[in-house]
Amino acid sequence: MEAKTSTMPTSEKELFIKMVVSNWELQNARVNKLIAKLSDDQMNAPTAPGRNTGTWILGHLIAVNDGMITLLGLGERLFPELEAAFTGELNKPGVVTPPLADLKKQWDTLNAKLTAYFSALPAEEWFTGHTSISPEDFAKEPHRNKLNILINRTNHQSYHLGQLIYLDKKQ
Amino acid sequence: MEAKTSTMPTSEKELFIKMVVSNWELQNARVNKLIAKLSDDQMNAPTAPGRNTGTWILGHLIAVNDGMITLLGLGERLFPELEAAFTGELNKPGVVTPPLADLKKQWDTLNAKLTAYFSALPAEEWFTGHTSISPEDFAKEPHRNKLNILINRTNHQSYHLGQLIYLDKKQ
Repeated sequence: MEAKTSTMPTSEKELFIKMVVSNWELQNARVNKLIAKLSDDQMNAPTAPGRNTGTWILGHLIAVNDGMITLLGLGERLFPELEAAFTGELNKPGVVTPPLADLKKQWDTLNAKLTAYFSALPAEEWFTGHTSISPEDFAKEPHRNKLNILINRTNHQSYHLGQLIYLDKKQ
Repeated sequence: MEAKTSTMPTSEKELFIKMVVSNWELQNARVNKLIAKLSDDQMNAPTAPGRNTGTWILGHLIAVNDGMITLLGLGERLFPELEAAFTGELNKPGVVTPPLADLKKQWDTLNAKLTAYFSALPAEEWFTGHTSISPEDFAKEPHRNKLNILINRTNHQSYHLGQLIYLDKKQ
């Protein structure tokens, strides 16, 4: 059994998954460090004049990252009620958003859940298509797999971290 | 020759590389689209009160991304003079920074060069250690390879794109 003696394909995949998950964790650690440092007043202030508040961005990150659970076929969103409030049109009138304290708890709960999901997902699974790509498209573009979603969402989080940092007056 | 009949390891690696390079190109496309849209006055304005200008951030992205050329062992920096001006301490007194028009040309030149380097780099090479990690550390942490640098720099660029977008008044 040649395949048994050489574990190369699996170990290569595992290495690559580690690279992507490590970068995701690094971005989470940076967001966590910043949030811990900012006061509630700072988080509730706009990141720049006329722009989203820190609290809104936190809700947005939860809503978008929570969407990975369904997109990766891992289960159901933990906080489906946040999707309407924090994705699509910004600051929709009439939409009630939860207070910062609740969002902080949801952020922690979500990250613990995502970490558990990610570590339990078999290496092979990461390289299958996500739930929003058709089998036909995936056959043509196999790089649009589940791991690619995590790369994309990590960049999305970095983008908003670049905005959240403007709340830190000590910079 | 078993290794010859199964191209799995190489094709897997090529797939990983395509995932990472595609995400890098996506971020570049977003930065290019935004820069093309912003006026010189907008680019020369602070992204938020007391924060870096769009022009400074562009210079910073060039300096940091240019550093990948040496870090990945591909050659020498194209614009070594930008390193002192745009990395480390922000807005250093006495440091003359080039005008926006020059930076835009340098940005395009650098991206064309990086794209050429990336497409010419053999798949195996991407998974070797970068030039700032010791062989001992790399043996222990093989995920700290050249491809990981590109994942990291893509996140860095996303972070600053989140700031540059604040110059776009149409948002």
